Amino acid sequence: MNAQSLDLTAKDTFRYWTDDLVRFADLDRVGHVNNVAFAVYLETGRVDFFEHAWPGSTEGKSTGWVIVRMELDFRAQGHFPNKVRIGTRITRIGRSSCTLGQGIFLGDTCIATSNSVTVWANTDDGVAVPIPDDMRAALLALSGDGPRGNG
Amino acid sequence: MNAQSLDLTAKDTFRYWTDDLVRFADLDRVGHVNNVAFAVYLETGRVDFFEHAWPGSTEGKSTGWVIVRMELDFRAQGHFPNKVRIGTRITRIGRSSCTLGQGIFLGDTCIATSNSVTVWANTDDGVAVPIPDDMRAALLALSGDGPRGNG
Amino acid sequence: MNAQSLDLTAKDTFRYWTDDLVRFADLDRVGHVNNVAFAVYLETGRVDFFEHAWPGSTEGKSTGWVIVRMELDFRAQGHFPNKVRIGTRITRIGRSSCTLGQGIFLGDTCIATSNSVTVWANTDDGVAVPIPDDMRAALLALSGDGPRGNG
Amino acid sequence: MNAQSLDLTAKDTFRYWTDDLVRFADLDRVGHVNNVAFAVYLETGRVDFFEHAWPGSTEGKSTGWVIVRMELDFRAQGHFPNKVRIGTRITRIGRSSCTLGQGIFLGDTCIATSNSVTVWANTDDGVAVPIPDDMRAALLALSGDGPRGNG
Repeated sequence: MNAQSLDLTAKDTFRYWTDDLVRFADLDRVGHVNNVAFAVYLETGRVDFFEHAWPGSTEGKSTGWVIVRMELDFRAQGHFPNKVRIGTRITRIGRSSCTLGQGIFLGDTCIATSNSVTVWANTDDGVAVPIPDDMRAALLALSGDGPRGNG
Repeated sequence: MNAQSLDLTAKDTFRYWTDDLVRFADLDRVGHVNNVAFAVYLETGRVDFFEHAWPGSTEGKSTGWVIVRMELDFRAQGHFPNKVRIGTRITRIGRSSCTLGQGIFLGDTCIATSNSVTVWANTDDGVAVPIPDDMRAALLALSGDGPRGNG
Repeated sequence: MNAQSLDLTAKDTFRYWTDDLVRFADLDRVGHVNNVAFAVYLETGRVDFFEHAWPGSTEGKSTGWVIVRMELDFRAQGHFPNKVRIGTRITRIGRSSCTLGQGIFLGDTCIATSNSVTVWANTDDGVAVPIPDDMRAALLALSGDGPRGNG
Repeated sequence: MNAQSLDLTAKDTFRYWTDDLVRFADLDRVGHVNNVAFAVYLETGRVDFFEHAWPGSTEGKSTGWVIVRMELDFRAQGHFPNKVRIGTRITRIGRSSCTLGQGIFLGDTCIATSNSVTVWANTDDGVAVPIPDDMRAALLALSGDGPRGNG
């Protein structure tokens, strides 16, 4: 698994998909899907991915995922009305942190890509804690990578 | 002006400031200011900065600013209720593109920093057009850099 | 058509349906779907209904629908993740105004109902203008009422 | 205290005021402040009012305020950028329920009014519980009514 070589604009990079619907409320005064809505779509995919891999992990009980960095490349305008599909996968997983690669698609068109770094942490004080082995395996399985050590 | 050397977590990096208020609606189910709200605060600062430098430039008439990349580093939790202050400055300005450095502060605490790349473009087809000289000067003046060529 | 006698909590009151997806971003710090999100779901249904009846009518070109009153009864908690279905129908249509009855459903459970009054108006000055006959017929047909005079 | 006779469009009806800032993100594609943003401003005022009267009462711990009905009259367009001021007062308080009257103002112009019914309830099952006497007194004092029986 080599994050650098992943093409997040290609649909076959992703095995896990989440749907969202473009809302009228997502439009700005220029009539485009606002940049903030893209961050919402990423969140939709991210929460769905984490929750699907490990039910309850996004409920903020004692430990949870804290996002520490988000990179978002806007590649095309979004349109309303429409359905967006968000592909989510792991590009790197460490002791406490998990980097997600995501692509937002309108049909076959990639309208945005993102890398975001999240940390498994105590929800009260934000201190990072090790990702449990079971959850790590579930995350990798869902991402489609399987357990690997061969980069 | 050297973008690499700018410390976006320091208040004195910024001369232009915009206020926003943390809303109850900005909280997520963990009780924290949601990551998406940080993107909203950045937008609040960005639009205010562009509009203040050049009134009308964010109204989407024939030409406008299109955001093409956003990097956002989350540094501390946001709290409600609260006032946030967003510092915005130019870190690089090219023929058609303008890179903004921003810091979000709660009091003296920097809770997030961001670099975002925006392009001055035709609002219909998204094709980049040169930043007019007058607007460029106004942007640099507002940023606090003044016209410069000494990096 | 007697608005008073309509049961907006009953699914068979509606023939026109719009889907929306509950987003993580719709939750508040209590973990419930925030009341504001209900207003968003109503908008999703309302814009879809108007736009489906008369394409372009919600784009704000010279004339458009202006909402002047919204009544919203919250009947049950919303949950995440989930799909909501919004039923929309006309309960009264006058010379320039159109009253919509709406129900928001999670599966078979009605979680909210609403009556809202909208006016067909000049988008610049907000002055009401008569609803064109063709659009009126299309609205009534979509609502499932058909043209009627027996109110 | 007679709810019917209160003029919610008059600034002197209110003694408790909350500020909010119109955000670029509050605009819709027509360039107006979206109707949903009005519901957000009401929430801003409502949460601030409840929290100010009784700190912690909106945190959703065992008991909290549940909104059961919202009526919202849109009276004028909102503009960006701008500060809105939200006046909030009690128009009726019962054993478990509290009806709020609110006005949203841009300068001296009332752009919306609202009546909303909230219930003090168990946050788990939504069952209404009596408003504690101390909190009731604090709410009335903040509203500017003081304890009264003289209608």
